[in-house]
Amino acid sequence: MSSDLHGNAPDNSSVVLLLVDVINDLEFPGGDVLAQHALPAARNIAALKDKASRAGVPTIYVNDNFGKWRSDFRTLVSHCIDDDTRGRAIAGILKPQPADYFVLKPKQSGFYSTTLDLLLEHLGAQTLIIAGFTGDICILFTAIDAHIRDYRLILPSDCIVSQDMGENARILSYAARVLDADIRRATELSLPAAPG
Amino acid sequence: MSSDLHGNAPDNSSVVLLLVDVINDLEFPGGDVLAQHALPAARNIAALKDKASRAGVPTIYVNDNFGKWRSDFRTLVSHCIDDDTRGRAIAGILKPQPADYFVLKPKQSGFYSTTLDLLLEHLGAQTLIIAGFTGDICILFTAIDAHIRDYRLILPSDCIVSQDMGENARILSYAARVLDADIRRATELSLPAAPG
Amino acid sequence: MSSDLHGNAPDNSSVVLLLVDVINDLEFPGGDVLAQHALPAARNIAALKDKASRAGVPTIYVNDNFGKWRSDFRTLVSHCIDDDTRGRAIAGILKPQPADYFVLKPKQSGFYSTTLDLLLEHLGAQTLIIAGFTGDICILFTAIDAHIRDYRLILPSDCIVSQDMGENARILSYAARVLDADIRRATELSLPAAPG
Amino acid sequence: MSSDLHGNAPDNSSVVLLLVDVINDLEFPGGDVLAQHALPAARNIAALKDKASRAGVPTIYVNDNFGKWRSDFRTLVSHCIDDDTRGRAIAGILKPQPADYFVLKPKQSGFYSTTLDLLLEHLGAQTLIIAGFTGDICILFTAIDAHIRDYRLILPSDCIVSQDMGENARILSYAARVLDADIRRATELSLPAAPG
Repeated sequence: MSSDLHGNAPDNSSVVLLLVDVINDLEFPGGDVLAQHALPAARNIAALKDKASRAGVPTIYVNDNFGKWRSDFRTLVSHCIDDDTRGRAIAGILKPQPADYFVLKPKQSGFYSTTLDLLLEHLGAQTLIIAGFTGDICILFTAIDAHIRDYRLILPSDCIVSQDMGENARILSYAARVLDADIRRATELSLPAAPG
Repeated sequence: MSSDLHGNAPDNSSVVLLLVDVINDLEFPGGDVLAQHALPAARNIAALKDKASRAGVPTIYVNDNFGKWRSDFRTLVSHCIDDDTRGRAIAGILKPQPADYFVLKPKQSGFYSTTLDLLLEHLGAQTLIIAGFTGDICILFTAIDAHIRDYRLILPSDCIVSQDMGENARILSYAARVLDADIRRATELSLPAAPG
Repeated sequence: MSSDLHGNAPDNSSVVLLLVDVINDLEFPGGDVLAQHALPAARNIAALKDKASRAGVPTIYVNDNFGKWRSDFRTLVSHCIDDDTRGRAIAGILKPQPADYFVLKPKQSGFYSTTLDLLLEHLGAQTLIIAGFTGDICILFTAIDAHIRDYRLILPSDCIVSQDMGENARILSYAARVLDADIRRATELSLPAAPG
Repeated sequence: MSSDLHGNAPDNSSVVLLLVDVINDLEFPGGDVLAQHALPAARNIAALKDKASRAGVPTIYVNDNFGKWRSDFRTLVSHCIDDDTRGRAIAGILKPQPADYFVLKPKQSGFYSTTLDLLLEHLGAQTLIIAGFTGDICILFTAIDAHIRDYRLILPSDCIVSQDMGENARILSYAARVLDADIRRATELSLPAAPG
């Protein structure tokens, strides 16, 4: 996000970009496999975030608290980057900026026991672009909760990964069929030009 | 449920049986196909409900209100049976008894905007057996919401159907893998003997 | 509500009337005292409900389930009237009509663990007129939950009673100060004329 | 909290201390009056927090986000102390320590649209000691939401203040009567000795 927007992203936007669990040390069994899929996706997400920013679409980091109930988001970011974790490169590429919002989630869905729904209402969101990982768990749970709350969904297929990419593809097809999600690649998405 | 238990099902049980959308007129596109899968499943569910009753496991009908915000559950049952709908035979087989509980849900998940979670807490439930249809939508949404709330899940594969039975099988595998659900057939389930 | 509106109350209205716990057997300690205050209030509420109906404002009965998790609202109404309870006259005056909505609440607030918020969203409600009893418990809890969800509040002082009418008056003053509630008498309220 | 407990407060405790809105710049109309009541209360709260810590009772700061959706708690603390606000002395006395938990609330009640309930469940809390300000708004709203969720309540009368101290006293009496709250002064409370 360009520096002149620091702290000044629009407070009102019908489209909002959610980045799910991208700040993640990936230090769990299978995290190395996930990291291989997630690194190229992170570059796609960064490009999408940049396009969103230029279109006036705010970004919310919807991130696991990883059971650390006393931590804030800043501490999580520092941990992933400074402690040389498997998620270091990804966290570096997608490092949050001052204009970004964040919501720490204690469970898989970004809506469960968090303030996400109220923040989205505050922003006037109607369409959610959801990116991050993993597609078959936290992205799916969050997308289902968004659908049940009547948000329109965009799940760019090149910005969502899982450990098993076959299952990732099946989940995206499911989301297209049952949640009416648009699953085109991020490069095919046209975001509205920012006002003014 | 045997008549001597009418209105006297135990108010406390660590295992609870949820019947999702079994009271359903099936009068929607594809409802005829679903009815073909659902009728034999309804017989399996009736046998499971009987076994549950004998084991002291209460049943909660978790049923769509079908957009009829003024209706009560009794009216829905009457509509399905008396109006000669596609769902008539199934509703007849699974007609609620006085000892059963019911929760009307306005959306796909039984937990969303309903009192289900509080009722389960009131009953002391820790394990949910979920049966009904469709496996790929209302059952999955409800099972995910149950998993996120730390309930243990049993999804008997012969008591859950969808229009597309291939997708139904994939969803059950997904639930076994991601939600740690037990997906054995109902006949293979051993329910605890009812106390006293 | 006039008979020609049966089942045809508008599904969309920015103003909605909530009747809290008016279907109530009052068979608890102090219920006799409450009944003395509630009977004249019930007549005021009936007049208000009639005025609301003529203005196209729908009514939602938001009523305790009194710990009877298997009951539906119809059974509660029958119990209060047919069993010759202390609440019989009040339930008779305020007997629900087919056009009315109802929500059973398991706790004091009408919003807690119920579908009320989603029903209000479905109706497009922005202003809630809350009437019933008791002012110092279920009405206050419900009004606070409504205020926190940004509904505008009208609490007509002649349609709300508590066992201790001094406390009732203090709670109404509190609601006027903290919840920005309009606490004028129902007779002073002008409801918009119904469209059409 | 003694330094040897830093980051090591017990993760399990049936009693939890909630500090409501004590990190507060008080830069609003009437904030100067509130500050006069709040400063001595802050000293009582600090003593209570110390007693709680020695008894192994964890503290959760339940604090308004003041409409700053992008801020974390650390930034709020810095703002109150470094910007020389009316709330500076109080924030200094009650400065959070590494062992403390925090929950940012977007509205008056600490339970609304936050993760507080899940955190309390994670901690195994059954009794909540609530302190802070203001008694007649955020403390009352939070206490009502706690009562409806079946928490036992302690509202120490010398640790809760409002702009209007007469109203503060009436609200405490109300909480004692309706919410079964223990409203003795903090000095009269005996907390269980910490295990081990």
